[in-house]
Amino acid sequence: MLKEEWAAKRALLESELERELNLENALDKTLAESMRYSLMAGGKRLRPVLLMEAAEAVGGRGEDYIHAACALEMIHTYSLIHDDLPAMDNDDYRRGKLTNHKVYGAGIATLAGDALLTLAFEVILRQKADSETLCRVIREISQAAGPDGMVGGQAIDMESEGKSITMDELRKMHMGKTGALFRAAIRSGAILAGAGETELNALTRYAEAFGLAFQITDDILDVIGDENEIGKPVGSDERNHKSTYVTLTSLENARQLAKDAVDEAVLALEPFGDKAWFLKELVEFLISRKK
Amino acid sequence: MLKEEWAAKRALLESELERELNLENALDKTLAESMRYSLMAGGKRLRPVLLMEAAEAVGGRGEDYIHAACALEMIHTYSLIHDDLPAMDNDDYRRGKLTNHKVYGAGIATLAGDALLTLAFEVILRQKADSETLCRVIREISQAAGPDGMVGGQAIDMESEGKSITMDELRKMHMGKTGALFRAAIRSGAILAGAGETELNALTRYAEAFGLAFQITDDILDVIGDENEIGKPVGSDERNHKSTYVTLTSLENARQLAKDAVDEAVLALEPFGDKAWFLKELVEFLISRKK
Repeated sequence: MLKEEWAAKRALLESELERELNLENALDKTLAESMRYSLMAGGKRLRPVLLMEAAEAVGGRGEDYIHAACALEMIHTYSLIHDDLPAMDNDDYRRGKLTNHKVYGAGIATLAGDALLTLAFEVILRQKADSETLCRVIREISQAAGPDGMVGGQAIDMESEGKSITMDELRKMHMGKTGALFRAAIRSGAILAGAGETELNALTRYAEAFGLAFQITDDILDVIGDENEIGKPVGSDERNHKSTYVTLTSLENARQLAKDAVDEAVLALEPFGDKAWFLKELVEFLISRKK
Repeated sequence: MLKEEWAAKRALLESELERELNLENALDKTLAESMRYSLMAGGKRLRPVLLMEAAEAVGGRGEDYIHAACALEMIHTYSLIHDDLPAMDNDDYRRGKLTNHKVYGAGIATLAGDALLTLAFEVILRQKADSETLCRVIREISQAAGPDGMVGGQAIDMESEGKSITMDELRKMHMGKTGALFRAAIRSGAILAGAGETELNALTRYAEAFGLAFQITDDILDVIGDENEIGKPVGSDERNHKSTYVTLTSLENARQLAKDAVDEAVLALEPFGDKAWFLKELVEFLISRKK
């Protein structure tokens, strides 16, 4: 059931993303192609799926919020393009394909990221919702993606390379780098579908626990994962002297922390009953994933 | 009068920009400092001043729209930071100061640009206005700054380096690269102050003529300007085989085109009478400027 629902939502998203990228009438064709190259390169599409499923948890229809979902995927994709740049992580491959700047050059890749981020805000406005709700969603997403969210976390990550950091700093970094956008995805879906304060708070609790479980599992996979499955060399964190939930505690401890986070996430979903079945199965699946 | 009014609006803006940058509670101090470094590096503050003055032309109070004005300056500043990057123009100096990446490195400079662009959308939402108007302004600004506006124009510019382009392509490039944000500034100010369709159309006509006059004058200054005043080496366009309004026609022809654009801009302001005195004097001043 989880995989079917996930695949259905992803298919919907892929076709809508295609539509959003207007290649024919683009001011600059190369720029439009480079945006398309990264945006349509696959991936789990976690953030847009979370947005749609949070809407369902509060009784809405996920597909009604496809535009806001697309916007989130654009923001996520821009962050990957910029992360991969020579000036940042300098990665040649992502998901088994050459990175954007390896294909289009670092100049166009920088602009493709800028363009996707800006386009995201235009795309949110295509969402059918009253203006007040749209403004609320734009606020959620801009705060989560900005200097006190995703970009700030990325800056901490870059500056702490090769340095050992404390557990507290690690948590702050991840809450910005990945946690904030997960949180905004879930909250935005709930807000769009008309969630009340109590529902919104419960889903926020889920979102924060989800983000933590996701990140710890990522760190664990870097140690015990299968290279072919996760698509990057195993053990790279240790070789790069990167502080992770595993290096700062132990593999056993990290596993326990992840399990606690999943329990917390599942508990937060209780008030929603069956309507939140996907969110429940998703967090349980993610902690058991191999990639 | 022009200079006093300009200085007053600028002073207001500088102090509000200072307030917007929350250094103390920043998630990452270095990132916040690098954003501040470029945002407070001076400049003409043309876009925010245009927004405020367009509001005044339709009977509003410019200072009431200071948040939207700040957002525009953040977007302009992000575009300068990214333009200067080694992967783009690779410039060491801007306005007589080291560029952002020369001080903070290309990684943080990339993130500082990303952060300013994202923060801009958060800052627009601080603007006191009804939600419907805010959504309209966000649409204007995101379209102008995105792939079919500023970023698209920048991509054309980068790709046409060393190539000769046609007058039509040159116009398309500038309409994106600089014109679109001028247009959005003026339209946003008018929309916020409650302009009707006729007023909005007239100011849009002004904005487009203003952008053209501004760009042609820039090209002329590269040929005849005083190096010390314009802050970059004179003749750099020709040395870089860059197509400009001067290289594609002649100095005389370019001067005439600029004069025509100013006439068009002034004509578009007629319905506003004295309320548009600043916009009128501004475009006349800009064509006569030495830097």
